[in-house]
Amino acid sequence: MSYETETIKGKLFADNTFSFPIRVYYEDTDAGGIVYYANYLRFAERARTEYLRHLGINQDGMLKEKGIGFVVRECHINYKSPAKLDDALNITCKIAELKSASAKMEQKLYRGDTVLAEIEITIVFLSLATMRPTKIPEEITNL
Amino acid sequence: MSYETETIKGKLFADNTFSFPIRVYYEDTDAGGIVYYANYLRFAERARTEYLRHLGINQDGMLKEKGIGFVVRECHINYKSPAKLDDALNITCKIAELKSASAKMEQKLYRGDTVLAEIEITIVFLSLATMRPTKIPEEITNL
Amino acid sequence: MSYETETIKGKLFADNTFSFPIRVYYEDTDAGGIVYYANYLRFAERARTEYLRHLGINQDGMLKEKGIGFVVRECHINYKSPAKLDDALNITCKIAELKSASAKMEQKLYRGDTVLAEIEITIVFLSLATMRPTKIPEEITNL
Amino acid sequence: MSYETETIKGKLFADNTFSFPIRVYYEDTDAGGIVYYANYLRFAERARTEYLRHLGINQDGMLKEKGIGFVVRECHINYKSPAKLDDALNITCKIAELKSASAKMEQKLYRGDTVLAEIEITIVFLSLATMRPTKIPEEITNL
Repeated sequence: MSYETETIKGKLFADNTFSFPIRVYYEDTDAGGIVYYANYLRFAERARTEYLRHLGINQDGMLKEKGIGFVVRECHINYKSPAKLDDALNITCKIAELKSASAKMEQKLYRGDTVLAEIEITIVFLSLATMRPTKIPEEITNL
Repeated sequence: MSYETETIKGKLFADNTFSFPIRVYYEDTDAGGIVYYANYLRFAERARTEYLRHLGINQDGMLKEKGIGFVVRECHINYKSPAKLDDALNITCKIAELKSASAKMEQKLYRGDTVLAEIEITIVFLSLATMRPTKIPEEITNL
Repeated sequence: MSYETETIKGKLFADNTFSFPIRVYYEDTDAGGIVYYANYLRFAERARTEYLRHLGINQDGMLKEKGIGFVVRECHINYKSPAKLDDALNITCKIAELKSASAKMEQKLYRGDTVLAEIEITIVFLSLATMRPTKIPEEITNL
Repeated sequence: MSYETETIKGKLFADNTFSFPIRVYYEDTDAGGIVYYANYLRFAERARTEYLRHLGINQDGMLKEKGIGFVVRECHINYKSPAKLDDALNITCKIAELKSASAKMEQKLYRGDTVLAEIEITIVFLSLATMRPTKIPEEITNL
């Protein structure tokens, strides 16, 4: 018997903001009773990955076939209000700036309409063997 | 503007097996290129939590209002085949045995019809202040 | 039989920079073969915790006895060069600015003399029940 | 200026039990106020890695030069008493059984003389390209 369930895909809104659902589990929290501060970056990366998948880019394929991947170069997080156990959240991702080998993303973590955290991330597309920047795939630059 | 997306819920099948979708992200993998062995337990707990939620049990509510929670007492994992980056998986959860203050769960991680891992977990329902076992809520025992 | 080993303490240098050793394990890495970007923040928090302990501040005690803790308000990370599996690193922590209820920390991750990452963190001391700022303990302000 | 600190090494006791210190940080705990159940496996792997390093085996070298690594095949955990924030613990590792391509390890997590958790792990030595078992290195079989 197969136990297939619906895959989680996220959604691209009219203003080119991609949004992805996050549920907070015990694994995400700490003894302070709130989401551990590093885990916001795990949430953020899920949204970026699903946004890329939505654009037709498969990171595992890139990694195995071409030995290339995105690496985070810089990251700024503004924690406004704590996320908590069992919260049903959404994390967004919007491309704010696009260069030949890098991109700046703006991401926000929402509980309903409330912004819990703002994240600004600069990613660089590079060859993992040489650790040198490479051109961003056309699926992204053609957006 | 609100960026609400559909919540991930999982599904209860006719044979009382609950199934929940898992997508593998970079955060779940390690330098060996496969899912880090401890992270199967994070996946497993997501399925248990969503199964409880499906039964009307909110763990955060239990924790805050009554100071009680489930604690894992014993756990056995059989790793059969590695999960990999970008895999779309399902993890199931089935109650195998039910006592007054504890339960044994059988969980399996699937890629399609292939079982990647089998997990057997014994959880105990207890007061987190005294760390003493308490009666399992009726939502579960009435199943 | 007891299997006690030496506790890891870190060290305060003459320029008031606290340094703490980090060893990179599989758990810290991802399928790209390098340390997962969120995990730099786990390393950073270890150094902050050990620095506080060095100053005589026990976070678990604060949390349980007074219901107060440090919460990160803002965080900026500059990733300069990737950390890798088995690396023996040091992460530093220096108080850059001290206000009545908050502090700015400068942290650096080193492999030998090479800076792999620079982290700037603003922490706020607050009551976890009300989530309101409280005065920073004297052990810190008297530095 | 360099901020080198002492590396954490662990210790091999006369009964061939290797012991390694663990400090519990916020990252290890969850909203229940105790160490998250999957994280015991992170602690266990640190001890196994340091034991291997003590025997002269570098996992990153094995991975890069020969494309081989240890994979966990089976794992049994008995949670006896919860580990908590700020705990100074020791985790041990002892080889219980040695075959040509696999080994069974017995590991215990201690707070002083109290055993908090018992872990039994079967690891298999394999080629990560083919995912097929390979002979265990002589550094281990010669023990």
